[in-house]
Amino acid sequence: MGKNILVAHGGGPTAVINCSLQGVVEAARASGSVDKIYAARFGAEGILAGDLIDLTDVPAETITRLHHTPASAIGSCRRKLTDADYPTVLGALEKFGIDCFFYNGGNDSMDTCNKVNELAKTEGLDLRVIGIPKTMDNDLEVTDHCPGFGSAARYAAMSAAELALDASGLPIHVVVLELMGRNAGWVTAASAMAARLTGCEVMTYLPELPVDTDKMLGEVERRYAKGRGLLVAVSEGIRGLDGKPLADTGIVDGFGHTVPGGTAQHISDLIIQKLGLKSRAEKPGLLGRASIPYVSEIDREEAYAVGKFAVEAALAGESGYMAAIKAERSPSYSSSLFLTPLAGVANAEKKFPTEWIVDGNAISDKFFDYALPLMGDDFPQYALLRK
Amino acid sequence: MGKNILVAHGGGPTAVINCSLQGVVEAARASGSVDKIYAARFGAEGILAGDLIDLTDVPAETITRLHHTPASAIGSCRRKLTDADYPTVLGALEKFGIDCFFYNGGNDSMDTCNKVNELAKTEGLDLRVIGIPKTMDNDLEVTDHCPGFGSAARYAAMSAAELALDASGLPIHVVVLELMGRNAGWVTAASAMAARLTGCEVMTYLPELPVDTDKMLGEVERRYAKGRGLLVAVSEGIRGLDGKPLADTGIVDGFGHTVPGGTAQHISDLIIQKLGLKSRAEKPGLLGRASIPYVSEIDREEAYAVGKFAVEAALAGESGYMAAIKAERSPSYSSSLFLTPLAGVANAEKKFPTEWIVDGNAISDKFFDYALPLMGDDFPQYALLRK
Repeated sequence: MGKNILVAHGGGPTAVINCSLQGVVEAARASGSVDKIYAARFGAEGILAGDLIDLTDVPAETITRLHHTPASAIGSCRRKLTDADYPTVLGALEKFGIDCFFYNGGNDSMDTCNKVNELAKTEGLDLRVIGIPKTMDNDLEVTDHCPGFGSAARYAAMSAAELALDASGLPIHVVVLELMGRNAGWVTAASAMAARLTGCEVMTYLPELPVDTDKMLGEVERRYAKGRGLLVAVSEGIRGLDGKPLADTGIVDGFGHTVPGGTAQHISDLIIQKLGLKSRAEKPGLLGRASIPYVSEIDREEAYAVGKFAVEAALAGESGYMAAIKAERSPSYSSSLFLTPLAGVANAEKKFPTEWIVDGNAISDKFFDYALPLMGDDFPQYALLRK
Repeated sequence: MGKNILVAHGGGPTAVINCSLQGVVEAARASGSVDKIYAARFGAEGILAGDLIDLTDVPAETITRLHHTPASAIGSCRRKLTDADYPTVLGALEKFGIDCFFYNGGNDSMDTCNKVNELAKTEGLDLRVIGIPKTMDNDLEVTDHCPGFGSAARYAAMSAAELALDASGLPIHVVVLELMGRNAGWVTAASAMAARLTGCEVMTYLPELPVDTDKMLGEVERRYAKGRGLLVAVSEGIRGLDGKPLADTGIVDGFGHTVPGGTAQHISDLIIQKLGLKSRAEKPGLLGRASIPYVSEIDREEAYAVGKFAVEAALAGESGYMAAIKAERSPSYSSSLFLTPLAGVANAEKKFPTEWIVDGNAISDKFFDYALPLMGDDFPQYALLRK
């Protein structure tokens, strides 16, 4: 008799989270040993409510469309499970006869995953639990990088380049770009690629270093005075010298985190008020994780691969692990997958190395050695005739 | 002896303005009758300062890159020429021995173009002046549509769909999307395509109709309560029942127009404060005109074609016209080009037909009959497994 599997999404989606789902479904179908393929409708909420989507007979053509479908095709949630919820989760898994459970998420979700696995072991259930990594923030430990990061980084790099060229071709204002990233600056760091792609003036600020706004404004004035436009890229979560966010929305999310936002507008207002320059703030926001045309192909492939790998591992009897990525960058980029214990990644947060931040707002080549293969090496060469 | 030509950009760029430049350069080279190809560095500013870029010997490969180069590759400006400036402009054209002048811009620029042509005639100069249309706002008269619009509309449609799916897959907040458009709602109207692409709840507000914010909030509450997420797309320039912009930046641009902005954040704040719902505002801003991955191929082709057509017209002896587009939509889309007198398009503004706005925030099929061929008919089919 075949196995029944359940896959769920946790937390915010990435541009390629559905590629991992595609990998799960196609690997399950290819295995010949899976009976039922379920997905939780809206993540943990769906599991708690016993509200599953039966994907078993969804046409292969529809599954193929996951390749370019943004957001979570099965739905996700930000509900942080409490101790009281776990028995309900196990009850739901038993009710549907689930043998393998895949949770596709970030460090909060890996904690959930770990607790489900531990409780199942305690209760003597034959449940196999494998975490599938996903976060645009790239802040998971152990794995070289996270599926979703390469695409978000490519979005940051290309949109920063496009805005820098706009600001430079019509140099009437400073442009401040806000990118997602509450505590980890990995995505925002990629915006520094704009300087390489365009030769324009670009300043990049990450949440890992406190920002001296007076110093920032002084440099804005100096660099804008070159007369060829200026892009200031900031992570939504950057903090001042007092350690407090420069701006926030006043909203607290389901995990108890304060939602940052309005940081670029705040800086743009300072530029207008304190420097007397024109300035505008752009905040593509969720587009940084939802935009499909900017997806990195290597990221898409790896997101698919971790989903497939997780299914193969569970069917081989493994449990209590997260699928992780090992990468080689020399002489050329290649990656392979391995299993790492969930306990080692649950709730841990990998910060951007502060030694890769140069002079407060430039990004070291070391970051690009690391990230460029993940973002794709097919960046456009622009015609910059006005230089 | 061959002709010398000068091309200049006026006002804000579009995602395909450089394709028109490519069309100008390649048509001039193909004609065999052009000696020198100049571009004004930073538009009218460059002409007034006698600061031209000599493109004559720029390698063909570099010119080809204009195809995917965002913003203005030669630079643009927002300087509105005064009567006192025109003799300086003509002096510069004479100094460089310019026979044909191409101004690539919107209605302000066509006014400039018209005045240069009139003054040249008055002074008995053999100068040929042709306007090349460009505006993402699509607000030029006579021409069926403007190069730049199709790409901006595609950006609005696809990014609205991506955000709607994000808001619907993780329904923890209302998402408010601000799109460019001070007075004309053509681009924002395209965001209504998101409802067709995703089946999600989408509300669209254009500057052509005053917005009753109480009514808007009532509908936000009703539609969000369906529990599957809600996207509210607004043009930056929407106005309240009192006729005043809902929000503005307090900045006045070089043409004397107040720069709108912050509209989505304003509405998002109202949703939080008055409805007690979570909400976030996204404002890709200039990305709506700078993003290359969202470019519409038909728009790119037409932008190239108007540049080429303008050169051919001028070399054939025409002057005082703008290149305009005639479109057939049945049985399938095709377009052709013609010349229309500059005086008829200068400073005129084509508004979105209010009869295409349904129930205040939906967009009629008539708009999509008009705009869909311009945006490209290759929209993705998504896998929406949670429905």
